[in-house]
Amino acid sequence: MQLSSSKYFRETFVKPEDVVAQKIVVTKDSTRGVHFRRAGPREKVYFKPDEVRACVVTCGGLCPGINTVVREIVCGLNYMYGVNDILGIEGGYRGFYSKNTLTLTPKVVNNIHKHGGTYLRTSRGGHDTNKIVDNIQDRGINQVYIIGGDGTQRGAALIYQEIAKRGLQVAVAGIPKTIDNDIAVIDKSFGFDTAVEEAQRAINAAHVEVESVDNGVGIVKLMGRYSGFIATIATLASRDVDCCLIPESPFYLEGTGGLFEFIEQRLKENGHIVIVLAEGAGQDFIARDMHAAEEKDASGNRLLLDVGPWLSQKIKDHFTKVQKMAVNMKYIDPTYMIRAIPSNASDNVYCTLLAQSAVHGAMAGYTGFTVGPVNSRHAYIPIARVTETQNTVELTGRMWARLLASTNQPSFLTDSEALKEKAADINNVDISAQI
Amino acid sequence: MQLSSSKYFRETFVKPEDVVAQKIVVTKDSTRGVHFRRAGPREKVYFKPDEVRACVVTCGGLCPGINTVVREIVCGLNYMYGVNDILGIEGGYRGFYSKNTLTLTPKVVNNIHKHGGTYLRTSRGGHDTNKIVDNIQDRGINQVYIIGGDGTQRGAALIYQEIAKRGLQVAVAGIPKTIDNDIAVIDKSFGFDTAVEEAQRAINAAHVEVESVDNGVGIVKLMGRYSGFIATIATLASRDVDCCLIPESPFYLEGTGGLFEFIEQRLKENGHIVIVLAEGAGQDFIARDMHAAEEKDASGNRLLLDVGPWLSQKIKDHFTKVQKMAVNMKYIDPTYMIRAIPSNASDNVYCTLLAQSAVHGAMAGYTGFTVGPVNSRHAYIPIARVTETQNTVELTGRMWARLLASTNQPSFLTDSEALKEKAADINNVDISAQI
Amino acid sequence: MQLSSSKYFRETFVKPEDVVAQKIVVTKDSTRGVHFRRAGPREKVYFKPDEVRACVVTCGGLCPGINTVVREIVCGLNYMYGVNDILGIEGGYRGFYSKNTLTLTPKVVNNIHKHGGTYLRTSRGGHDTNKIVDNIQDRGINQVYIIGGDGTQRGAALIYQEIAKRGLQVAVAGIPKTIDNDIAVIDKSFGFDTAVEEAQRAINAAHVEVESVDNGVGIVKLMGRYSGFIATIATLASRDVDCCLIPESPFYLEGTGGLFEFIEQRLKENGHIVIVLAEGAGQDFIARDMHAAEEKDASGNRLLLDVGPWLSQKIKDHFTKVQKMAVNMKYIDPTYMIRAIPSNASDNVYCTLLAQSAVHGAMAGYTGFTVGPVNSRHAYIPIARVTETQNTVELTGRMWARLLASTNQPSFLTDSEALKEKAADINNVDISAQI
Amino acid sequence: MQLSSSKYFRETFVKPEDVVAQKIVVTKDSTRGVHFRRAGPREKVYFKPDEVRACVVTCGGLCPGINTVVREIVCGLNYMYGVNDILGIEGGYRGFYSKNTLTLTPKVVNNIHKHGGTYLRTSRGGHDTNKIVDNIQDRGINQVYIIGGDGTQRGAALIYQEIAKRGLQVAVAGIPKTIDNDIAVIDKSFGFDTAVEEAQRAINAAHVEVESVDNGVGIVKLMGRYSGFIATIATLASRDVDCCLIPESPFYLEGTGGLFEFIEQRLKENGHIVIVLAEGAGQDFIARDMHAAEEKDASGNRLLLDVGPWLSQKIKDHFTKVQKMAVNMKYIDPTYMIRAIPSNASDNVYCTLLAQSAVHGAMAGYTGFTVGPVNSRHAYIPIARVTETQNTVELTGRMWARLLASTNQPSFLTDSEALKEKAADINNVDISAQI
Repeated sequence: MQLSSSKYFRETFVKPEDVVAQKIVVTKDSTRGVHFRRAGPREKVYFKPDEVRACVVTCGGLCPGINTVVREIVCGLNYMYGVNDILGIEGGYRGFYSKNTLTLTPKVVNNIHKHGGTYLRTSRGGHDTNKIVDNIQDRGINQVYIIGGDGTQRGAALIYQEIAKRGLQVAVAGIPKTIDNDIAVIDKSFGFDTAVEEAQRAINAAHVEVESVDNGVGIVKLMGRYSGFIATIATLASRDVDCCLIPESPFYLEGTGGLFEFIEQRLKENGHIVIVLAEGAGQDFIARDMHAAEEKDASGNRLLLDVGPWLSQKIKDHFTKVQKMAVNMKYIDPTYMIRAIPSNASDNVYCTLLAQSAVHGAMAGYTGFTVGPVNSRHAYIPIARVTETQNTVELTGRMWARLLASTNQPSFLTDSEALKEKAADINNVDISAQI
Repeated sequence: MQLSSSKYFRETFVKPEDVVAQKIVVTKDSTRGVHFRRAGPREKVYFKPDEVRACVVTCGGLCPGINTVVREIVCGLNYMYGVNDILGIEGGYRGFYSKNTLTLTPKVVNNIHKHGGTYLRTSRGGHDTNKIVDNIQDRGINQVYIIGGDGTQRGAALIYQEIAKRGLQVAVAGIPKTIDNDIAVIDKSFGFDTAVEEAQRAINAAHVEVESVDNGVGIVKLMGRYSGFIATIATLASRDVDCCLIPESPFYLEGTGGLFEFIEQRLKENGHIVIVLAEGAGQDFIARDMHAAEEKDASGNRLLLDVGPWLSQKIKDHFTKVQKMAVNMKYIDPTYMIRAIPSNASDNVYCTLLAQSAVHGAMAGYTGFTVGPVNSRHAYIPIARVTETQNTVELTGRMWARLLASTNQPSFLTDSEALKEKAADINNVDISAQI
Repeated sequence: MQLSSSKYFRETFVKPEDVVAQKIVVTKDSTRGVHFRRAGPREKVYFKPDEVRACVVTCGGLCPGINTVVREIVCGLNYMYGVNDILGIEGGYRGFYSKNTLTLTPKVVNNIHKHGGTYLRTSRGGHDTNKIVDNIQDRGINQVYIIGGDGTQRGAALIYQEIAKRGLQVAVAGIPKTIDNDIAVIDKSFGFDTAVEEAQRAINAAHVEVESVDNGVGIVKLMGRYSGFIATIATLASRDVDCCLIPESPFYLEGTGGLFEFIEQRLKENGHIVIVLAEGAGQDFIARDMHAAEEKDASGNRLLLDVGPWLSQKIKDHFTKVQKMAVNMKYIDPTYMIRAIPSNASDNVYCTLLAQSAVHGAMAGYTGFTVGPVNSRHAYIPIARVTETQNTVELTGRMWARLLASTNQPSFLTDSEALKEKAADINNVDISAQI
Repeated sequence: MQLSSSKYFRETFVKPEDVVAQKIVVTKDSTRGVHFRRAGPREKVYFKPDEVRACVVTCGGLCPGINTVVREIVCGLNYMYGVNDILGIEGGYRGFYSKNTLTLTPKVVNNIHKHGGTYLRTSRGGHDTNKIVDNIQDRGINQVYIIGGDGTQRGAALIYQEIAKRGLQVAVAGIPKTIDNDIAVIDKSFGFDTAVEEAQRAINAAHVEVESVDNGVGIVKLMGRYSGFIATIATLASRDVDCCLIPESPFYLEGTGGLFEFIEQRLKENGHIVIVLAEGAGQDFIARDMHAAEEKDASGNRLLLDVGPWLSQKIKDHFTKVQKMAVNMKYIDPTYMIRAIPSNASDNVYCTLLAQSAVHGAMAGYTGFTVGPVNSRHAYIPIARVTETQNTVELTGRMWARLLASTNQPSFLTDSEALKEKAADINNVDISAQI
């Protein structure tokens, strides 16, 4: 069969045996380690174009680039393989139970990448594996593209297993989405670069505000439920931040080496301080402080206590009451303003690669996989691999060391704690691989 | 004496008797009305350049364009009149009591207009008329430029009176600053245009968020303590807003014609709604609801209850409990991100005109005045005139009618109320004059 | 008849006898002057909503805001008056001869204001009055909205006359479009504010480039065929420009007081110079220098000689050959990058007002008019009035004086020339009215 | 000695024997290949902080991020190693002969990364090895940081050799700067990401312009003298481009499979076409067409013939004369507007890493090296390695295949040519490594 993709990719077909190593820095005594199949066009294609009925669904919160991924799955299937039958499932997993679907063509999706949000709309939760697979069967769908985060990918794994159990010839491809960059194995998640860029606006605003007053304390809360990547990289990019607090690094407020002491010191030196705060920072601390019980959202994510207002109030109280000194608090939460923008050029290219990898994989007959770069080479990864652990900022890694060198903030750690930390974080990935 | 300004302005000298009328639409039976001196260069200059010692001070909250005004006062004095002795008072009125001042030259201020905030730093309150005038006398200052809002201008009026009482030859010029556009008499305040532009980002983000989910309710809180100009014009500019709530227009939540009913209706029609909310909207209502007592800040401004989180919670509760329907609430407060940006091109030009008018006025020997366009002609206005009332959105005016036509939101008013309102608002200025 | 507009505008109906004065600054011996009908909703409406068949056409070059005007004509007709039958004529006047038209509804145009360009597409020329009116008659159109520049409005006047001659009950409304702001009578044209804002990017880039090198000469060419408004206001907004050359102010290169001397002086003082250049500047001079004959485009506009590359080459040659000094020339032509962007918030509001004025006028039964603010009040103006002269920068006005004070550039004029100029420019409008 | 860097980097010291492999995809029969020392802090430091006198110089054209690199060299030396004596050499290599230098401190450079251009100013050429090394000796400088492109790095290698010949204890570190991304060995050059992002504005403008007219032909010229990376990635990011022409891929205009045929086809299908053009595309072709001789600039770079206006004219002529069809040509050259902007967040982080690597290397006593990521790990590379070849887009690589799949443009190549090309380009690096 003469595929349209062969026209372009003839020279660059990936051989079935090509693999990508998960670990690139190899030491004397390290074992061979895990390898994944390299992503890309195959010479041998499993599906005939006119037999393909594909569907695309988006789940969970917004993230810049979703629309580019949707667009490029549709254009990739159509331009590279001649597929004409593509359905859009609307409003997340729930959309599988709905009577209606959207018809997706290159023309329909032509400009959606210039807009934020998701053209297919989204929701949290609503996953019923059997009903979804029934629906896939009823509609005669044989390629399922699922764009979503952790919980969504776990759902995709269940769909894949149920499909396997029923013996259906249906390819299930996951495209991992998390603005937090906390997906394991892959180098970075799409939208992350755009989020870091847009976060600069909020940091700049906080900096301008606190520079203009006496004892200005600027706090910017950024995304990052379990990982502080956005906060860390946004801090490094800005060079205006005095302190970055992330979920991976517990902090304390009072006493020697605590946050209050550091704030006081910077106010004395510079008259102002800018703190960047990941939303997941200090959760245990706040929970103890507020005697709060844990709750979960529809996707099964733990409902976080809002660290931003909590910390702002703690700082205000401390300086007013204990230090007898009024601080000018400027708290900014730019979350929705970051999530809702279109992806930047860098993410647009990245989303294109992810989508094309997914299309090549499904067309080649792979299933139960997600896509993403591993050590900067795009690979197919079993879904379970990316959901079993989470990517977090390694406190003993080079990126965090660079951040500490840049902010000169307290480490909030004693030496023994640092070493313990190091031993525990075996699943951590050094973000320097993505820069 | 041959002034440098005469080089450029020879053709355009303003005659002392030139005036600007406050009311432009004249009806049969209207009296002649109030007129102000037209701003601009005079043939006759009061101060000799080498005898001038000027100072500039900025007070109150941030607003885009402060730095441009400061820059243009300095450059105007220097380039147009050859003045070389200009001091920057740091950190608001309090800076008058400080030992140090900044030396301001065209070189020092050359690039400050490209940055947000205020190069001179600012604070609230701290006004002690006698100490300030003592300080002016001690330093030998004979021109005082005061950039600030309502409270600041009242302080400027006191300084002017005390100076007059002491018989000092000191010119006091106020440049009215309020991002809210609520200063009476003048057409609009600087930074307003930039604020409306930047507010679009937040409104767009809210719109994208709610369009991507079921029952999405987006709320964007914008500046506007006593007046809803930013909210009104930002709503008109966006065309994505379903409802705009401002201090001038009381609203109610429950029952027929209430906000909940309107939200429910839009959710049914479109699946989402975007509400723009001025910070001062509904204050009496909230106060009653929260049984809160009134507090004031250091500038004497009433401390507002935070309408944003309050309304978000009210809506969530209503739809969860009463309507048994989960709404997806997306609340955005972009206040600091708007206040802290540099002024746009339009405000840069406007700030230049304000600063040059102030300089021409002070050099011509006027004092106790503020500057600003009245019916699009720049004029000198006695300070007391701009502080005795406030500019608010006229609910029976054409701009609000255009907004209602655009959003089709409930008026929250019965006919008799509307008429009463009209009679009471004799000080209101129709914003259509500024467009 | 109960109109939907009356719901909002009841309080603000314009009385048929309300007028706006063309001249606002009145002197002792001035006559009463020209007055125009005030724009706005009338109590008495001429057309019944279900009898209206409207059409919209866009002609000439791009300008930010065209799509907002189109959107608001459609939404205004539908929301305010209940009109449902609106056609989009595609590709300029030529589209009248085409078999196809677009159907315009609020839903179709809902998001077009977020995109640059024109949704209706455009072209130059192609005007055949009789064929167009035949077509209007054949299609049963009774409201014609024509968005376009000078040539287009002259075409609109011809259409209006032919319609009058044939005794048809068809309202013809022109919405003047010129990014150059050179339309007479009205305060400013839509898109102008956006253009000035976007021009700052190019000026900033030129400034950064020349500041980084020795003898840097940055030249930015901006729009302005016959008027230098964009160049003038962009220069005032930037504060980084050393010299602004516009069509209204002839300049010369060599000798005392010439441009070369001024460039040399600034290079000696600062090491760099930034020149902003309106495209129509120096045309006669270049024509003589190049011995070029005059040509015209399809709209009848004189084809300008490209002053940008010409001046760049002249400067390079002079300094290399005559001064034996290499200059670092940085020439930027951002024209298309400015024209093609969406309108900013300020222009969005302005376009809305223009469109609604046009709709109110046509629905009230007026015809042969254009709309626009005159002394900041929206008015209906006979089409012929706005095409018989052009708005240009008044060299003896206050805005140009401010520019000269800001750049300190040579005036390129002797005193006697200045006076002569003043006498000749009776049609000029002082731009200070629009700020 | 207790270095301040050890505080942060203790956990992450790089061992002297750590290396980075140049080739990451290893095949059965490949040799071990080239390895470079891994960049990063060393436990053993060569220089004592108070004995260091460092200098920084910037050469060649502008590129986003230069100021961030300068800032981070200064802050890195000061914060991480306690170095206090740092000089800024002004205006490129020529600055070494000047009497004056700038004193660089963290405070002086604190905000320069928010501005485009180079704080140290720059020039082309002016390199006299002996005079420069004399000057380094005279001033007692022992660390030289040189930021610049190809020619500049060749100059740095000569300085390093002369210093070695004289037996001076001076570290020479090069930071490769080329907006074109054409530097060999390293993954990508700083400023590239920002350039691709900013290029989207011009492409969008061209697309909007040509979509609004009949037979619209938009041409955007982007940087890329010898390599088409910016054009390629900007095309992939945009999804609005029909054709991308780069120096690596010769093209022809007339006949079957030529550019004119492709343009005609797209105009027929879509009514418009957008072409992105690297400045170095088609140089041989143009030279033959124009009978032009080769010239060079002060840096020794070949002066390119301006392909943009040339191609625009060729297309206009062809369609007017041969096809009797008027095209609407929209040509945009955004070069200076791209070069002069500040670096985006992603490049800011990247520039920080480059600067810190350089500082760690020089402090550890390495010399004659440049820094940059090789397979996403930062490494020290002998200067000669990066200047002996150039990085170009591999026509048989996956990124170009993706581009062809995206644009569906003609390859302008026969099969035999493609293979020949492949064999010749042994130095090419597949850009997919950087995404």
